[in-house]
Amino acid sequence: MTRVFRVLVASRDTALPEKVRQALAALPASLGVAELELQSLDISQVTGSEPLNAASLDLLAEARIFLSEPRVAPRLLPHAPKLEWLQSIYAGIEPLLAQPRRDFIVTRAGGIMGLHMAQYVLGWVISKERMFHLAPQYQAKKEFRNAELHYRHYDNVTVGILGLGDIGLEIGNLINRAGFQVVGLKRSGLTESRERFSVTSDLKTVLSTSDYVVNVLPSTPQTRNLLSGNVLQACQAKQPCFINVGRGDVVDEASLVHALDEKWLSSAVLDVFAVEPLPVESALWEHPQVTITPHVAALSMAEDVAAIFARNASHFLAKTEMEYKLEWDRGY
Amino acid sequence: MTRVFRVLVASRDTALPEKVRQALAALPASLGVAELELQSLDISQVTGSEPLNAASLDLLAEARIFLSEPRVAPRLLPHAPKLEWLQSIYAGIEPLLAQPRRDFIVTRAGGIMGLHMAQYVLGWVISKERMFHLAPQYQAKKEFRNAELHYRHYDNVTVGILGLGDIGLEIGNLINRAGFQVVGLKRSGLTESRERFSVTSDLKTVLSTSDYVVNVLPSTPQTRNLLSGNVLQACQAKQPCFINVGRGDVVDEASLVHALDEKWLSSAVLDVFAVEPLPVESALWEHPQVTITPHVAALSMAEDVAAIFARNASHFLAKTEMEYKLEWDRGY
Repeated sequence: MTRVFRVLVASRDTALPEKVRQALAALPASLGVAELELQSLDISQVTGSEPLNAASLDLLAEARIFLSEPRVAPRLLPHAPKLEWLQSIYAGIEPLLAQPRRDFIVTRAGGIMGLHMAQYVLGWVISKERMFHLAPQYQAKKEFRNAELHYRHYDNVTVGILGLGDIGLEIGNLINRAGFQVVGLKRSGLTESRERFSVTSDLKTVLSTSDYVVNVLPSTPQTRNLLSGNVLQACQAKQPCFINVGRGDVVDEASLVHALDEKWLSSAVLDVFAVEPLPVESALWEHPQVTITPHVAALSMAEDVAAIFARNASHFLAKTEMEYKLEWDRGY
Repeated sequence: MTRVFRVLVASRDTALPEKVRQALAALPASLGVAELELQSLDISQVTGSEPLNAASLDLLAEARIFLSEPRVAPRLLPHAPKLEWLQSIYAGIEPLLAQPRRDFIVTRAGGIMGLHMAQYVLGWVISKERMFHLAPQYQAKKEFRNAELHYRHYDNVTVGILGLGDIGLEIGNLINRAGFQVVGLKRSGLTESRERFSVTSDLKTVLSTSDYVVNVLPSTPQTRNLLSGNVLQACQAKQPCFINVGRGDVVDEASLVHALDEKWLSSAVLDVFAVEPLPVESALWEHPQVTITPHVAALSMAEDVAAIFARNASHFLAKTEMEYKLEWDRGY
């Protein structure tokens, strides 16, 4: 039996359809896909506030398979009664959980962000440890000095990772491989301590022993405001740098600024915020110990998304277990 | 038979004697060392221009084992007729090769700099790829934008390593583990290509395919000015960033500036220079595409030096093969 495999794409990434085409072209013939039909929704129309036009509504009415940014999905779902499977192009799928419909499969773009994010975190850890920011200052003065640049031995630097899921583990493993000590926070599960990489379920242990505290936790009722109030006071012994690549709501802004001003934290590198774009009124913008990056620790890249979509397409067609499938009741 | 093990230390690192004491205390009793005697030369006197004082001369006259900065050794050697073994606290031992005496063992502080240097190189590669330098610029304007921060997928970034000795291999392996493609230059030897890490003996291949060219070569007659003249024109296809953590004499300054001005290289991160400290007259200081750091890619740390010294001390006592032993005729 030959089949047409039709996919509706809703993404701002103009490179995605071609990468998907290439990835799907490599699917085994045994899956029975004779023809691939890729359709793209006009993303400017989809993300705008105008009503969806007739062309978009027609595409949605027949769509069974969706490759989509999660945040546009809630607006589209009411018009897509035949939807069977939505592959998100991000790992985070909160907008899908926030809408009521549960009669379709959601797969996250899991497993593809870890190394991007690990590079970002390790890059900042090394930049801070080695004081890269001082290079241009000395250079401007033509000063070739290095007494101030004496850095700590990596044996004596501990990086704490809040959240040892796929991404947290990838971050911890790379940082560990680069020589640093790692201590990871994990509520449950099978990750075990090994030499130079300890695992604990005690938040205070991580906060009090780390020179860097890296948040990778997703946003859940258990993690929201986990570090708010005086929780970060546990950091005061080592005054770590706080690096947030997880979710912005793990700590409220006032608590974070307080922790910096009290020197419980020496500095912060923030890539995620409770509200994005970060409002111009935020005190974080001008805080001298804060570095802000605009949610770029891990960009969702077309080649990565296409690869996981193709693998999941083969599972979908063969009716085998899909990768990074959302459990609706668990919320991840 | 019990023995006194006497070591003369000549280093500016005041932490070194205690770290050596700790490391030697862990030597097995079977080596027969009953007593450890650590002596320190007054380093300010040794590195100054005054004649050596009587105390220094007395210590040197009896010294059999030396733990020393290489650059002070030539001045001390004529006064140390009983010297049997010199453990350098650096990997580079050029000053020892430049003096005539050959009747003692020299061991380099090998194997301890690799990860320090790999962190430095990877830190700069990530900082450049992710445009970390733009963060404070956007932050100052309270601009939360990321279109300009779209970085390349690590699959599409190649880091070339000139020199695959211990240190080059450590750098290449870490960068490879972080996701980047690696191509290494090696004249000879056993290192073999593997997936995402190719090895070649052709300099032009490395220069023409790399997005970063990392020099780790030692200074030898074959490597001096290896990149001088128009050699870097081979880079023009990809306009890499040149990172030098090897030796400053691999390229003369005029050739390097020319390569930057011709855009054969897009930028340079330089940690080593033909003359150090880099003279204030150098055109590199003010070149907009150049980042200068003052020879801090890998600092020789007391704990690392003490560990290799202790291992070599056990070999010395047991008359077994010492680690990182200099072959006088080979020059490394």
